[in-house]
Amino acid sequence: MSSKYSITTPRLDIDQNTAQHIVLKILEALSVPSDIAKEVVIHLLESDCSDVESHGVWRIHQYTQYYQSGYLKAQGRPELKQNSKGAWFVDGHGGIGIPAMNMAIRDVVERAKGTGLAAIAIQNAGHTGRLGAYAEYAAAHGCLAVIIGGGGRKDWRLVAPYGGKKALMSTNPYAIGIPGGKEGPVVADFATSAAAAGWVYGAKIAGASLPEGILMDKDGNPSTDPEAYFDGGAILPAGGAKGYALAVAAEMIAEAMLGPVTVECNWLILALDCSLYQAPSKFQDIAEEILLELRECPPAKGFDQVLVPGERESKARKTNQDKPISLPSSTWGEILELAKSLGVSLPPT
Amino acid sequence: MSSKYSITTPRLDIDQNTAQHIVLKILEALSVPSDIAKEVVIHLLESDCSDVESHGVWRIHQYTQYYQSGYLKAQGRPELKQNSKGAWFVDGHGGIGIPAMNMAIRDVVERAKGTGLAAIAIQNAGHTGRLGAYAEYAAAHGCLAVIIGGGGRKDWRLVAPYGGKKALMSTNPYAIGIPGGKEGPVVADFATSAAAAGWVYGAKIAGASLPEGILMDKDGNPSTDPEAYFDGGAILPAGGAKGYALAVAAEMIAEAMLGPVTVECNWLILALDCSLYQAPSKFQDIAEEILLELRECPPAKGFDQVLVPGERESKARKTNQDKPISLPSSTWGEILELAKSLGVSLPPT
Repeated sequence: MSSKYSITTPRLDIDQNTAQHIVLKILEALSVPSDIAKEVVIHLLESDCSDVESHGVWRIHQYTQYYQSGYLKAQGRPELKQNSKGAWFVDGHGGIGIPAMNMAIRDVVERAKGTGLAAIAIQNAGHTGRLGAYAEYAAAHGCLAVIIGGGGRKDWRLVAPYGGKKALMSTNPYAIGIPGGKEGPVVADFATSAAAAGWVYGAKIAGASLPEGILMDKDGNPSTDPEAYFDGGAILPAGGAKGYALAVAAEMIAEAMLGPVTVECNWLILALDCSLYQAPSKFQDIAEEILLELRECPPAKGFDQVLVPGERESKARKTNQDKPISLPSSTWGEILELAKSLGVSLPPT
Repeated sequence: MSSKYSITTPRLDIDQNTAQHIVLKILEALSVPSDIAKEVVIHLLESDCSDVESHGVWRIHQYTQYYQSGYLKAQGRPELKQNSKGAWFVDGHGGIGIPAMNMAIRDVVERAKGTGLAAIAIQNAGHTGRLGAYAEYAAAHGCLAVIIGGGGRKDWRLVAPYGGKKALMSTNPYAIGIPGGKEGPVVADFATSAAAAGWVYGAKIAGASLPEGILMDKDGNPSTDPEAYFDGGAILPAGGAKGYALAVAAEMIAEAMLGPVTVECNWLILALDCSLYQAPSKFQDIAEEILLELRECPPAKGFDQVLVPGERESKARKTNQDKPISLPSSTWGEILELAKSLGVSLPPT
């Protein structure tokens, strides 16, 4: 599998079963119940298979730190609830956000398929992994889903507001999933910052630089060095005022409406059954005509082809599903070290 | 009032009543019913008062051309309907989109206040004016509104896909409105292109250049000259892959789901009553705390202050509501010429 980062470290191919086994055992050693651990590992491996390494198995280090510091509750099991107004939400009970988001997207899609339109909030949950995965699920089930996250800026001051030089906001991610053409769903999955925090972490771990226009250092000067960010800098908003405006809207949703934030972010998902307005087969025909035209657009300088959002990931998953995942050797070595330190017995190499 | 454009032409102050009277009479002379004409004029003047000149009264030239060419139906009156699945939509009956969007946002907000959550589509309607106005309405009534438009790319090939060098898409605008702090709603209102087409038109009319990073010429080279766009160039997507992904999602919504597009764009609005999840007073308190922090952020080089999205426009309206509007002399001269050519009797100067 390829990586988004400039590669400056050697890489290893790791059998997926091996990676799954070891990461699962790490989570279990941290007291995460097996079913929740399995959901998390499947999600992380799927991110690696989607060539979204920034949200792949290397995250186990971050999650371990979260569990060990008490920031996340290992036993936190998501629960579907209604508030006093009858509005639905998933209470993550302080656990990792991946099973909370899985529960939320399944519920909101099911209700949208019944009534046409549904909403759900996700509160009191930690890191939710690759947001696109949930948008893909909704789209694969015939729904439009809009997923918006934010809040918790007091603990996650990563991004400067447009026109400002101080990191005050979180990366406030959005994802939109909707059925597409013959190649599957269209998925917009992005941080409203010029890069997701995962990219910056990933670049740091891979020893790589970031493109220009993503970071400023602590004095407000442009930088491509991920270390500049960790040394008091800030990530810039994507598209200037536009990403910033989306981010502020996300803060209103996630903190003013759904707050206070107890763990990392709060989330809102809106889902609409697309068949309310169009028969699925006709939808796919029109979609395919639009997307084919985009795929066939003459590429600009520096590009091989025009891609359809979401198709890179779904194609990568098809190609990679039975192949080993490729990780920086140091990342895999650190995962093995972590496993050992937790008393996980490693398979013979 | 100030303008977004570099000013290279002299400007005139025009009394709002005079502007309203003349633009209303132009629309009536084009056979637009008085009540619809009045909605349109009020909307355009409000855009000028919001310092969003790109969507202000100069648009009357474009609308006149649309009516005279038969692209828009002067008698087209919006109608609220349900499809066979019970989904709500406004049929614009081929008329201007402003009254259609007014009808849609009022309906969807009313239903959201009743049931918590509502959706509406807008089809068969022309130019919808300043999208932020509808998002503000929803927010002022306690709702989150997400407004997404697209489709009609065959007639409106303005924007290149990310990685491509050919204009294939429309500007696919989004707006999100949500209650804010003490200063009123937070509104994200933006084209998913690096600039709205209105900016490019506006810059051309004002004889001004555009900033870098907005246009490419017909050969794929960067350009700041609005004429390069009209000479076969393309607008770039905002934030590269991010704006492009939002745009493709909008095409799926507006054309694959709500299509075919008969006039300009189709639109979807999702509205959620925020009081489902938070009492309005607590919402405002938390919002104000967040927004105050943003307003107080030390400005970056080249900026005076950090603004809250939507507050520039609402403050401008408060300041400008009783003042004359400022227009390029040539724009106002052309409006007077247009009025004369349609037999509108002008007030004495």
